[in-house]
Amino acid sequence: MKADWIDRAILPPDETAAAAAAARQDQLTKPRGALGRLEELAIRLAGLQGREKPSLDRVRIAVFAGDHGVAAEGVSVFPQSVTVEMVRNFSAGGAAISVLARHIGAELEVVDTGAVGEAGTLPGVVSDRVGAGTANFCEGPAMTPEQLEHALGAGRRAVERAAAGGTQLFIGGEMGIANTSAAAAVACGLLGLDAAALTGPGTGLDADGVSHKTRVIDRALALHAEAAGDPAEVMRRLGGFELGALAGAYIACAQAGIPALVDGFISSAAALTALRLRPDCAPWLMLSHASAEPGHAAVVEALGMQPLLDLGMRLGEGSGAATAVPLLRTALALHNVMATFGEAGVSVQEG
Amino acid sequence: MKADWIDRAILPPDETAAAAAAARQDQLTKPRGALGRLEELAIRLAGLQGREKPSLDRVRIAVFAGDHGVAAEGVSVFPQSVTVEMVRNFSAGGAAISVLARHIGAELEVVDTGAVGEAGTLPGVVSDRVGAGTANFCEGPAMTPEQLEHALGAGRRAVERAAAGGTQLFIGGEMGIANTSAAAAVACGLLGLDAAALTGPGTGLDADGVSHKTRVIDRALALHAEAAGDPAEVMRRLGGFELGALAGAYIACAQAGIPALVDGFISSAAALTALRLRPDCAPWLMLSHASAEPGHAAVVEALGMQPLLDLGMRLGEGSGAATAVPLLRTALALHNVMATFGEAGVSVQEG
Repeated sequence: MKADWIDRAILPPDETAAAAAAARQDQLTKPRGALGRLEELAIRLAGLQGREKPSLDRVRIAVFAGDHGVAAEGVSVFPQSVTVEMVRNFSAGGAAISVLARHIGAELEVVDTGAVGEAGTLPGVVSDRVGAGTANFCEGPAMTPEQLEHALGAGRRAVERAAAGGTQLFIGGEMGIANTSAAAAVACGLLGLDAAALTGPGTGLDADGVSHKTRVIDRALALHAEAAGDPAEVMRRLGGFELGALAGAYIACAQAGIPALVDGFISSAAALTALRLRPDCAPWLMLSHASAEPGHAAVVEALGMQPLLDLGMRLGEGSGAATAVPLLRTALALHNVMATFGEAGVSVQEG
Repeated sequence: MKADWIDRAILPPDETAAAAAAARQDQLTKPRGALGRLEELAIRLAGLQGREKPSLDRVRIAVFAGDHGVAAEGVSVFPQSVTVEMVRNFSAGGAAISVLARHIGAELEVVDTGAVGEAGTLPGVVSDRVGAGTANFCEGPAMTPEQLEHALGAGRRAVERAAAGGTQLFIGGEMGIANTSAAAAVACGLLGLDAAALTGPGTGLDADGVSHKTRVIDRALALHAEAAGDPAEVMRRLGGFELGALAGAYIACAQAGIPALVDGFISSAAALTALRLRPDCAPWLMLSHASAEPGHAAVVEALGMQPLLDLGMRLGEGSGAATAVPLLRTALALHNVMATFGEAGVSVQEG
């Protein structure tokens, strides 16, 4: 792979700022540890932002849309035209992620990495098209080497635009009919699993549909068996434009020192790819939620991350991550504003 | 018990509004069910508020503070003076619940139901004192019958003040050194369990401290064994002023048609008492989070409710419930604002 930028330096979190934040937590008027993961989040964000009192005023969401050749195998209940229709819905403000972005005051950018249909010029939509959908990975690699490089770069460019705006938290989302198939295939290729371990109903397949989807993915895994364990090659052969863009975005976030909040099943497969390419991006990735897609649990375990929310969501678009943003902000409000024992004149614990 | 108001009518949720909300969810531009519990929350709140598109602009938090005679047995790591010190901290704005209330734009009221120390006149603090702390339930009943009636009524009065302000969601919180002991004792009395099943570290006991606390509670359970299964009598003998106020508040919320968001371990013991007194208040109570206090899981199972969050919090004050409010508002933003398939021109699923 020629994407040399993947190897650029990633700095570790600022341990001094994290330690100052941890010391502050122990002085706040509450029993030590009583705010649980909200304390951990504040301390972690302090380390990532390099200051004792972090903030999350500026949040950026980039939704990467792309189509998948494997849709021809009948692995989704929705027609492929929905990908570009949803791009229009994102732009018009009616989709879940559009509503969530406004609700949490986040900037929303949609990146067309290659839907089959072209959306044309739309407000809030950036064209960074790799092609008109990937090739069907049951018949050959989903992407050429040049396409993979373009896809990874689309993620990096989205992060560069976010960084230029001073983003303090990056959320990647995705849209693409059949992309639970691609995500399951990528994760199976990275983890050495059969399709049955990670294949689920996606947007709503019944049991027969899941069986068919599993067979389709197993066929692809057999065809591309030589790629197993090579993260770039697994992504190229079994992934997709938006999956590659997400993986590139996560690495670029770590390189730019911007924390990234990972969404659900598809984003997690991309995050696993990013981690296999650059294990040192791990501190910069936080997992927002546990998806209802049954294969997510195994991917989460491989990521070594603990999701913040478990609400049975399975929409994608970055919706789970956007839903978790108020939780991060609550953690910071408590951390930054609560009184210390000394300030409040409250007795500390005995013994 | 003479509190006749406990028997006042409770109306069931509005099934027509809930059905309209459910039909709306199935038209929004997402796969059916893809927003998981966020969909259920919106539909449930529609039923409770009696309209297809509910709102949660006006949220009220009442924190009930009270002291416990059982503190004399050495069951907490904090001295009893902390109860009134924290009342001052609530009023001054430095406590977790004060910060959370501002963060979510909720009204905060503190009700002194009977701390040992008197806070005096403080902004945002209502005096509805039942006494200067309960009696030590290891030596006799925690409350007289008149005190229990007063405590339950303190909760009802807080809900009446909230209702007068047009509150759309009520959160009860509590503060009282040793009140995890009282809550565990009440829940054991209601569920017929030994203390070991529900006793935990509270604000930070070590293993020896938990063992001692367990023996103290078992002594009280033996002394008051004749009350087992009688919810009012269990609350009177083993509960506390703030626990009684919370139980009264939950019943009053159901009577007033105001949804209540239950906090953690102590609030759940009060909610269980309310449910045993009035099983038909169940639809009006939602559980915000799973506490880190190990006994909470058994109480949650008895409540038959599913917590929204699981973040290892164990602070009380209503903090877990306040942390969950943004989640409810996110659910309503999605429900009320997302485009339908028809509005957005997005294809529905095949087959």
